[in-house]
Amino acid sequence: MTEARMPIKVVQYGLGPIGCAAARAVLARERLQLVGAVDIDPQKIGRDAGEVLGVGRSLGIEVAATLQAALQQSPADVVLHTTGSFLDAVSGQLTEILALGLDVVSSTEELSYPWADHDQYAQQIDRAAVQAGRTVLGTGVNPGFLMDTLPLSLTAICLSARRIAVTRVIDASKRRGPFQTKIGAGMTVEQFNAEVRGGRMGHIGLRESAAMLCNSFGHSVDHYRETIEPVTAANDIERGSAPVRRGDVIGIHQTLSAVCAGTEFVTLTFHAALDAENEADRIEIDGEPPLQIDLRGTNGDIATVAILLNAIERVMAAPPGLKTMRDLPPVYCW
Amino acid sequence: MTEARMPIKVVQYGLGPIGCAAARAVLARERLQLVGAVDIDPQKIGRDAGEVLGVGRSLGIEVAATLQAALQQSPADVVLHTTGSFLDAVSGQLTEILALGLDVVSSTEELSYPWADHDQYAQQIDRAAVQAGRTVLGTGVNPGFLMDTLPLSLTAICLSARRIAVTRVIDASKRRGPFQTKIGAGMTVEQFNAEVRGGRMGHIGLRESAAMLCNSFGHSVDHYRETIEPVTAANDIERGSAPVRRGDVIGIHQTLSAVCAGTEFVTLTFHAALDAENEADRIEIDGEPPLQIDLRGTNGDIATVAILLNAIERVMAAPPGLKTMRDLPPVYCW
Repeated sequence: MTEARMPIKVVQYGLGPIGCAAARAVLARERLQLVGAVDIDPQKIGRDAGEVLGVGRSLGIEVAATLQAALQQSPADVVLHTTGSFLDAVSGQLTEILALGLDVVSSTEELSYPWADHDQYAQQIDRAAVQAGRTVLGTGVNPGFLMDTLPLSLTAICLSARRIAVTRVIDASKRRGPFQTKIGAGMTVEQFNAEVRGGRMGHIGLRESAAMLCNSFGHSVDHYRETIEPVTAANDIERGSAPVRRGDVIGIHQTLSAVCAGTEFVTLTFHAALDAENEADRIEIDGEPPLQIDLRGTNGDIATVAILLNAIERVMAAPPGLKTMRDLPPVYCW
Repeated sequence: MTEARMPIKVVQYGLGPIGCAAARAVLARERLQLVGAVDIDPQKIGRDAGEVLGVGRSLGIEVAATLQAALQQSPADVVLHTTGSFLDAVSGQLTEILALGLDVVSSTEELSYPWADHDQYAQQIDRAAVQAGRTVLGTGVNPGFLMDTLPLSLTAICLSARRIAVTRVIDASKRRGPFQTKIGAGMTVEQFNAEVRGGRMGHIGLRESAAMLCNSFGHSVDHYRETIEPVTAANDIERGSAPVRRGDVIGIHQTLSAVCAGTEFVTLTFHAALDAENEADRIEIDGEPPLQIDLRGTNGDIATVAILLNAIERVMAAPPGLKTMRDLPPVYCW
């Protein structure tokens, strides 16, 4: 991967916070060239991408309403796709990208391991990719790495694995506002619980991570056990224009266990809250030998953007089809 | 990898401590079938493999002096090769295995990343593999995983990596006698230093790990800085039939730095001693974001045996040629 080559032409599809950060990272990486930007937001369409990205200069790239329109400005090799979490919303976009002859790296959480819960979408996207001779991957930090690919990779040095537990603790105070809002910070407990009941609250991707782990070890999942609880403030918290009062919500504590043949084979814990202490990820493999791994520094949008970019070369080199991180050689920074 | 299939027929080539442990692990794994055993030791040739492995039963497999003789007892799919650390000693064995039509997973340290220091052997083995339509991999815990594949894989979530440091601390008291001897335990400092001067002391593979990391990030290595020091006993140590006296050697402290474009890009530290405290591995990536990873439990021959076995399916599924762990999808326990 070190030879001098033509830069890889990238279209950024989706200009939300993560998409904009990814596009800026593309601009900063020598081997990549940003050639297009797509978003459905009328406030962004038609403007210069440099302005929308806030890079302080014109890029000569007009934000397009459709990928087809973007490709009229320039041919491209690969799309970074960051428009949504759910396959029912984005599968049409993915098959469109493939049909237009481009490889895709997507942040869609449900795409990280779609074969368990979304087999029909998986088959449809895989067929579209094979027909187009292109490759599509769903990845990210979580799902995509910390709770699936990394624990799986760590079992390389185990003769057996009886149980896998991953706990992720995020100090949301260090994260951007939309992330804080997403985990319920500032809500009352009643509001939080109403969001949970409405299916609008909770980290997406725990099922995908658990399913990848279980299936890799030859286990099918009998059922999942899932809990979502609010984390509440022990004291009032100053927080700029939106202070949080004692007893109100500062974050989320979510667990998912996958039960295989009557026992919990995988247990995933996602804890994200304002001022959370002991920010870290812990992976415990109850195996032969037993392993414990503690990671620090994995927090933040930088990591998400990084894995999207870093996956590009592996995706372009892979055979056509819908791939997961389990199918590709190790993605690394280049 | 979860479908029911015919068991994979394995020949164990090399019946030292690691080879015997690997063969016993093959016997214990459902998807694998031990069909042959090869060693050059006249004390082992002709005996039943079950006796040599100490499994308390006859296996109906006669230890053969050559692979060809072993294959006359049974056809095979793959060879687990554990005969030595150095390519000048084992490259003939590897090309022989390939020519006989078998895939190979080898513990040869210099094979883990042979392209930097042993390019001629690498080319020759790669050609032999491609001609035979077979695949060969060198792997292990270190080199093969902890100081190369794993740190590389962790940079998946980094936008950049300026420097990588890995420190491995092993409590040799928990390891088998030959390992303790290998790290100098029980020697005088003079004996240890004479072994170092004679090139007979030191962990093999640090260069391979460092070269894989540097080359993956597009850096060529200007030069290596290497130190090997004895760790000495602060007090007399009881140790069965071979007590260690205060001031004598209880282990080794070895470092290797790879200097690229004037700066140390990779620094690897290998510390193995009797009663070493804080046994763990630490990976530090000075990058964007900075990461720190601490692993516990990676010690021991189990881990080495595990990665050899776990790599088998990935090697058999890979295209022909000489591969490194960087080329294969994540190896995991199955």
